[in-house]
Amino acid sequence: MVNVDEYTGPDKQKLIGYLQSFITPQRYAKFLEVIKNRTRFLTIVLEDIYQSHNASAVLRTCDCFGIQDVHIIENRNKYEVNPDVALGSSKWLNLITHSGPENNTVKCLTNLKKNGYRIIAATPHHISFTPETLPLDQKTALLFGTELTGLTREALDMADDYIKIPMVGFTESLNISVSVAIFLQTLAHRARSGPNPWQLTEEEQNDILLSWLQQSINKPEMLIRNFNEKEIIRKTSDKKF
Amino acid sequence: MVNVDEYTGPDKQKLIGYLQSFITPQRYAKFLEVIKNRTRFLTIVLEDIYQSHNASAVLRTCDCFGIQDVHIIENRNKYEVNPDVALGSSKWLNLITHSGPENNTVKCLTNLKKNGYRIIAATPHHISFTPETLPLDQKTALLFGTELTGLTREALDMADDYIKIPMVGFTESLNISVSVAIFLQTLAHRARSGPNPWQLTEEEQNDILLSWLQQSINKPEMLIRNFNEKEIIRKTSDKKF
Repeated sequence: MVNVDEYTGPDKQKLIGYLQSFITPQRYAKFLEVIKNRTRFLTIVLEDIYQSHNASAVLRTCDCFGIQDVHIIENRNKYEVNPDVALGSSKWLNLITHSGPENNTVKCLTNLKKNGYRIIAATPHHISFTPETLPLDQKTALLFGTELTGLTREALDMADDYIKIPMVGFTESLNISVSVAIFLQTLAHRARSGPNPWQLTEEEQNDILLSWLQQSINKPEMLIRNFNEKEIIRKTSDKKF
Repeated sequence: MVNVDEYTGPDKQKLIGYLQSFITPQRYAKFLEVIKNRTRFLTIVLEDIYQSHNASAVLRTCDCFGIQDVHIIENRNKYEVNPDVALGSSKWLNLITHSGPENNTVKCLTNLKKNGYRIIAATPHHISFTPETLPLDQKTALLFGTELTGLTREALDMADDYIKIPMVGFTESLNISVSVAIFLQTLAHRARSGPNPWQLTEEEQNDILLSWLQQSINKPEMLIRNFNEKEIIRKTSDKKF
């Protein structure tokens, strides 16, 4: 994928216009429909999920609910996506992997806080909010732990608050993809109908559209090179007159 | 498991009192807490689910939401529970398997209708209700199809209505256990706060308590034989005086 960060806003718009001519109008209309429902007001953070069918089902669920960013913390377990379960959803999301040599939980959560996120740990073991009662007056990152042992001490300590699903059976815990879905169904609905701006900015939308376009066409690098050359010629000739 | 269908109500009560002395009071208190939240107002029907981790996650979800009955239709695929995923939840549920030589879909749904259930097929391909809009004025069976091909023609034809989850992403379908959870979160909450009686009758509760007790103690058959003999002696001696 070509990094288009150094392009100005109008150049990005032009590049989108150029690349969109290589997909069908129906496909591009779908992009526009999906992008207007995408949000970063809610984000999902997965700490050391190791079962690939769980990881993949979470991605599918995030795509369905319009969640754009999924943070993946790899301290012990490498996050692997099972293509049969993810059904291609990962290519429509921004997967941000934290897998450095330091404590990736601390790094990821510190970064999210710096970016204005409140960290809400999903755990049945604390006095917690429920999806209905959690305050949603701020960008919110929902933090989920590994299948067997749950969230690490660092994660629980750094969380601003806790959330759980009220349960009335013998089983005390739900499958992780099921939990994510239950939280998102209520919270995504509440975020979208609440007073806070939940939609992506125009610039964010354009960056994601460019990434989706590149995922959807053959040899995007070649086409972008082609576009760049034309643009240089046009700009140079603009200056001449 | 001993069939206690022929016991009268008072005898069942006595047997419960007898068997409960073989488990801890804390355990029995948990039984009573769970049973008062159990419901048959909503039931889940799974047609030919073949991935055992999906099947098992559905059972865990049903237990968590207090759904007592899960109907399993096996026309092509045998339903297998993955113990790692189900975490023992299947022993707290009534799993009703339909695996005869005839069309098990027709048999199961006909039977549910006879018992007053409205059949609601979960399918994204029809003009449908959502979990928020589905009328809940009657006992409701939610019908889910196999992972790849969805519900059979028979199932769709016999359904009284359709339900789907509103989705805003590229992925058009959710993992089955995820779908069940999303439907149940909203529908179980709505059923419990609605005007219709959703709790089990005292007799239903007693039958299930007897099954849970038998699952929780060693050699229940021997203990029940012991109870029966004592009861016969007591009843005979009652008659003498």
